[in-house]
Amino acid sequence: MQQVEVIFARSQSPAEALENLISAATVSIVAALYRLANARLVLALNAARQRGASIRLCLNYNDHYEENRAAQAMLREHSIAFRLLGGRTGSGSKMHHKFAVIDGSAVAVGSYNWTLESEQRNYENLVLLRSPLVAAAFTEEFEALWKEGWTPEDAAPPEGAHARS
Amino acid sequence: MQQVEVIFARSQSPAEALENLISAATVSIVAALYRLANARLVLALNAARQRGASIRLCLNYNDHYEENRAAQAMLREHSIAFRLLGGRTGSGSKMHHKFAVIDGSAVAVGSYNWTLESEQRNYENLVLLRSPLVAAAFTEEFEALWKEGWTPEDAAPPEGAHARS
Repeated sequence: MQQVEVIFARSQSPAEALENLISAATVSIVAALYRLANARLVLALNAARQRGASIRLCLNYNDHYEENRAAQAMLREHSIAFRLLGGRTGSGSKMHHKFAVIDGSAVAVGSYNWTLESEQRNYENLVLLRSPLVAAAFTEEFEALWKEGWTPEDAAPPEGAHARS
Repeated sequence: MQQVEVIFARSQSPAEALENLISAATVSIVAALYRLANARLVLALNAARQRGASIRLCLNYNDHYEENRAAQAMLREHSIAFRLLGGRTGSGSKMHHKFAVIDGSAVAVGSYNWTLESEQRNYENLVLLRSPLVAAAFTEEFEALWKEGWTPEDAAPPEGAHARS
């Protein structure tokens, strides 16, 4: 398997590539997603969770509010752990990542949001990087986001959370 | 120099990384950009053009209209060649890429749009891949976009262009 694989929405299905990656996970998946609106990928995450993999997501909270509420509902339905956050400078700034780290060894990253729009309509790229070193860098970023995020059970973002401002 | 380098907006400047990459170009730069709103990067592209590098850009045309007009004006001012296009399915779909290929040997890709918002406010990633094979894949995608794009001198998108529908 090559170290770098590139998928273009023009001719391949990024959702299928992500599904395959998620389906191969045995230990853990962390993902930081600006947008999440593709039930197929949530089902794949849930299947990984049911196989015993640890799943954690960080979702952006600063726009696409209806879609975000629907994403939260899907994740709750499947008992997938997630946190919400905005960008670096408060209201209007975005947690704009769209990456996943699988088993600490592979990363999916690119322009591709986990939505049907990206899958079916846009020109998009998804890059798969099979490298523990690269995975470690993205995991470190994820942990920093996770630490900053709040759980949606909270009545409001925690004191000091950027997105509250 | 490592084959894969990851820049997070949290702690590093993706614009500076892009500027360094552009400044090292000697032959060609192609970039497909959903958004372009950072004069610093246009100036770096122009300096590369003045050194004799061939520069071509594809820009999305299906939203952020004012920003897009300003980007077009900047590019015209610096005689940088560009074309416009939308996504795969007409009006509302996006050319959502945000990648550049430098000298057919390095690729910059990720969540990072070439805007001040991405630079200063959002959580973003930019991945630098130094690989002629990966560069070739992105160049092929760029050429397909370029073929589909229209020049802004046209009164309207050419007959059959998706973004016209």
